[in-house]
Amino acid sequence: VGGTLYQLSKAGKLCVPAMNVNDSVTKQKFDNLYCCRESILDGLKRTTDVMFGGKQVVVCGYGEVGKGCCAALKALGAIVYITEIDPICALQACMDGFRVVKLCEIIRHVDVIITCTGNKNVVTRDQLDRMKNGSIVCNMGHSNTEIDVASLRTPELTWERVRSQVDHVIWPDGKRVILLAEGRLLNLSCSTVPTFVLSITATTQALALIELYNAPEGRYKQDVYLLPKKMDEYVASLHLATFDAHLTELSDEQAKYLGLNKNGPFKPNYYRYTHFNYYLLIIN
Amino acid sequence: VGGTLYQLSKAGKLCVPAMNVNDSVTKQKFDNLYCCRESILDGLKRTTDVMFGGKQVVVCGYGEVGKGCCAALKALGAIVYITEIDPICALQACMDGFRVVKLCEIIRHVDVIITCTGNKNVVTRDQLDRMKNGSIVCNMGHSNTEIDVASLRTPELTWERVRSQVDHVIWPDGKRVILLAEGRLLNLSCSTVPTFVLSITATTQALALIELYNAPEGRYKQDVYLLPKKMDEYVASLHLATFDAHLTELSDEQAKYLGLNKNGPFKPNYYRYTHFNYYLLIIN
Amino acid sequence: VGGTLYQLSKAGKLCVPAMNVNDSVTKQKFDNLYCCRESILDGLKRTTDVMFGGKQVVVCGYGEVGKGCCAALKALGAIVYITEIDPICALQACMDGFRVVKLCEIIRHVDVIITCTGNKNVVTRDQLDRMKNGSIVCNMGHSNTEIDVASLRTPELTWERVRSQVDHVIWPDGKRVILLAEGRLLNLSCSTVPTFVLSITATTQALALIELYNAPEGRYKQDVYLLPKKMDEYVASLHLATFDAHLTELSDEQAKYLGLNKNGPFKPNYYRYTHFNYYLLIIN
Amino acid sequence: VGGTLYQLSKAGKLCVPAMNVNDSVTKQKFDNLYCCRESILDGLKRTTDVMFGGKQVVVCGYGEVGKGCCAALKALGAIVYITEIDPICALQACMDGFRVVKLCEIIRHVDVIITCTGNKNVVTRDQLDRMKNGSIVCNMGHSNTEIDVASLRTPELTWERVRSQVDHVIWPDGKRVILLAEGRLLNLSCSTVPTFVLSITATTQALALIELYNAPEGRYKQDVYLLPKKMDEYVASLHLATFDAHLTELSDEQAKYLGLNKNGPFKPNYYRYTHFNYYLLIIN
Repeated sequence: VGGTLYQLSKAGKLCVPAMNVNDSVTKQKFDNLYCCRESILDGLKRTTDVMFGGKQVVVCGYGEVGKGCCAALKALGAIVYITEIDPICALQACMDGFRVVKLCEIIRHVDVIITCTGNKNVVTRDQLDRMKNGSIVCNMGHSNTEIDVASLRTPELTWERVRSQVDHVIWPDGKRVILLAEGRLLNLSCSTVPTFVLSITATTQALALIELYNAPEGRYKQDVYLLPKKMDEYVASLHLATFDAHLTELSDEQAKYLGLNKNGPFKPNYYRYTHFNYYLLIIN
Repeated sequence: VGGTLYQLSKAGKLCVPAMNVNDSVTKQKFDNLYCCRESILDGLKRTTDVMFGGKQVVVCGYGEVGKGCCAALKALGAIVYITEIDPICALQACMDGFRVVKLCEIIRHVDVIITCTGNKNVVTRDQLDRMKNGSIVCNMGHSNTEIDVASLRTPELTWERVRSQVDHVIWPDGKRVILLAEGRLLNLSCSTVPTFVLSITATTQALALIELYNAPEGRYKQDVYLLPKKMDEYVASLHLATFDAHLTELSDEQAKYLGLNKNGPFKPNYYRYTHFNYYLLIIN
Repeated sequence: VGGTLYQLSKAGKLCVPAMNVNDSVTKQKFDNLYCCRESILDGLKRTTDVMFGGKQVVVCGYGEVGKGCCAALKALGAIVYITEIDPICALQACMDGFRVVKLCEIIRHVDVIITCTGNKNVVTRDQLDRMKNGSIVCNMGHSNTEIDVASLRTPELTWERVRSQVDHVIWPDGKRVILLAEGRLLNLSCSTVPTFVLSITATTQALALIELYNAPEGRYKQDVYLLPKKMDEYVASLHLATFDAHLTELSDEQAKYLGLNKNGPFKPNYYRYTHFNYYLLIIN
Repeated sequence: VGGTLYQLSKAGKLCVPAMNVNDSVTKQKFDNLYCCRESILDGLKRTTDVMFGGKQVVVCGYGEVGKGCCAALKALGAIVYITEIDPICALQACMDGFRVVKLCEIIRHVDVIITCTGNKNVVTRDQLDRMKNGSIVCNMGHSNTEIDVASLRTPELTWERVRSQVDHVIWPDGKRVILLAEGRLLNLSCSTVPTFVLSITATTQALALIELYNAPEGRYKQDVYLLPKKMDEYVASLHLATFDAHLTELSDEQAKYLGLNKNGPFKPNYYRYTHFNYYLLIIN
């Protein structure tokens, strides 16, 4: 789903302007990182009552969702391993204190597998065959394809529905693997979404609609746009009062020094919410 | 310094291509977030032997450097407050468990002030006047202007050099404020830089030079460029062996599903090292 | 309830030997610290769907239960304050990075109050009157007396049951305070107990019964005893395989050096699961 | 050293009363857990400039010192393994999110070994032979016997002093192991002790002396005593102002309910700074 608009646009088939609100910073951070940090715990507890302390968990994918899941589970005493295809995210995982492994190295030992990749067949039947009795498999990624659930619907395996959203898949030797939400999104199926996150998302979407509606002729063509930085900042500022957070305002002198408008936007578009130190000037 | 190349480019005065290596992901994360997470502790210990547990600290600026400083200090038992001008970063600070305040609200109570803003006069003489006896002021930002050190060079204040890089500024009533590195960068002046970080930085710079040198005529104009994503990923991959980290490789089927080359780049240029869920299509 | 056996014993009214299994180390750490670290999150989520990130929470009491609650909430981005009567626990809270306050200092600002004291009337009507609209009050302590719930059953306040275990108490001005489990134990009323914790507790109790039953005449008098250290260690060792944890064994030479039996007990009875450095010899 | 007084006492050879101030709670927590949490980082940085992020570290012994070291290193992104002889401490390590291993399982992979056991020959020559090139070995325990340094003083190994307190021990094949402080205590040799910790220790010792001096004839015999709980609490209370911490006072009604004096002591002597829930009464 994610890439569809960009693919349409690339193929010249997008017939209206579109705004990619998912990639607004507030949307990403709240819907993905901060929300998943809580919903992974909530979803696992409500379905399985598992104790997190001491459990060995592998999280497939160290994007925002994976980062959120890992932070929460590590904080509660789980031992977390990461799989990654992207060396930058893998190096981030190392620096954050996680072993980066291939799934095959660890599959026999883990108590829980969580997929957060956006990819398909990240957990295959072959791997499910090697999991421990009583281990849990669930998906926090983007669709129901990350775990190859179809491969489990074969005659030699028995499915037992033990409660809503929880199936025991039983191997001929009696081994049980606990599959949550039949491989669909755990955070949507088995946990709740805080109203605060809904507010962030709804505000972002409403502002995007207002922007597209109000924009002067020609500002937006038949393409996919990111939410203007300033509106992204506006969404955030509307939610600060909830936390009794007090922004500092730039003095005129400081705004001039930084080359910024006192009311924002405060960052260039390519900013990843990071910091600048120095540049390398190269003469060739 | 940071913005100079972009300012030159904007003014049409940049006469050669330049590569903004500071904004490469690996460079940012390592030189800023991960390195500062350690050097703030190292710099404070070597200069002051302060115990972190229980100390009240205000960190000005919640960019990468600020995030690194806060993570380390919080983990060691300090109580950390944030000041921010940008509502997005302020909301991130809230969700990460920090109170966001104006400096004036907290200045009388804090034991340590750390500036990480890239701005000037973030800590003014007026604020320094209100600090507690024995409090520490230091700078982890981009230059020596964040703390208004010049304002402390007045006749009524006495400076006492107690050891290298450590001055006691003494008020007429005997109050002492401990100023580190005369307001210059603590991480450069008072702590060491791990060889691992130097390796990341040097590799990034070398690859940028090689790219500019080897690029066919016309690929780069007289402008400022970000390091191509693929080279950024290459820098990261070269450093994974140090951590015995094992990357997962995409299958042909998965690469096709994701629309990616199996060798990367794995992310679009606008990616902030986050995750995609869905898009909002708007018809106007 | 807790002190009753010791009170009976002190009064000479205890007519049988009793074993204080609650103060066995494994029991305490699992039932209290480690279990509550998870059940506070579980209980709050299932009843209120509250987002933890950025919330201001006050935890009354920094014993094992309080420590568990604080660790979990802090890890998920809440800002946690502590109230304490005991200066040692208060100092521990400081070093662990929490502000220690009186409830009256903070009551108007907090989003959640959690009592973990073993005391009565820790949250009074007067304090409930000053809480914010929408704030949550719950009890993780030892009985239903920590919050003065009786004081809320007055004509001017309306109670509205919004779901099982969740009441909105409504003030005349419309303010709502969310009371969980009518002030009874949240961890028993609104969350589940992992089977692992039940196993620890049941094993401890069973071993205590076996010990009292098998003990030779005269080993135990009409008094309250702590579980022998060696049995406490045995309970722990039975549960290590769950985590694939591998104990190191003492060599003969090491056992002799330490003055220990190779099979334990490994610690003196007064040990608080801490470390020995040196002693102060005083001649008077 | 630690056990000597108790051994003297047991042997009937202690000719004066002695107070075991090391086992006072404040002393233990500050000198051991909280101080070591900081000094392990300080000691390693000052001697080796090692980056903690991503490093694989094994900590031998999960007592207070080990717990402090592990907490700090984990927080800074190291991957920490534990070795333990005591199943209770091992189970604590599991619940705190650490793999519990035998040293032989992990020795070839770790970047740093830290001993915190109070035992001897915890790291043997045989194990040092199997360490990686560039790995670091140091001791945070009670004496210089934890690492078998004597076994490294053999003709086939070359020692190279690279800076104060840092030796490279060089194997015939060129492998270097970095030995800190020749196996003596890292925290005493290579880091500083915060004045705050010294104050806690000195206050505890002074109060113990005053107590022994002032005690009426007969209160103390020729034995080893723990500091009276109330004095332990007094030491803590004297240090709360540093953190602007505000104790809550018991009401008369609450003190009566708890069976406590309003001025303390607040805990029974056997308290491990934990919480009480319920007791098991057994009739035999």
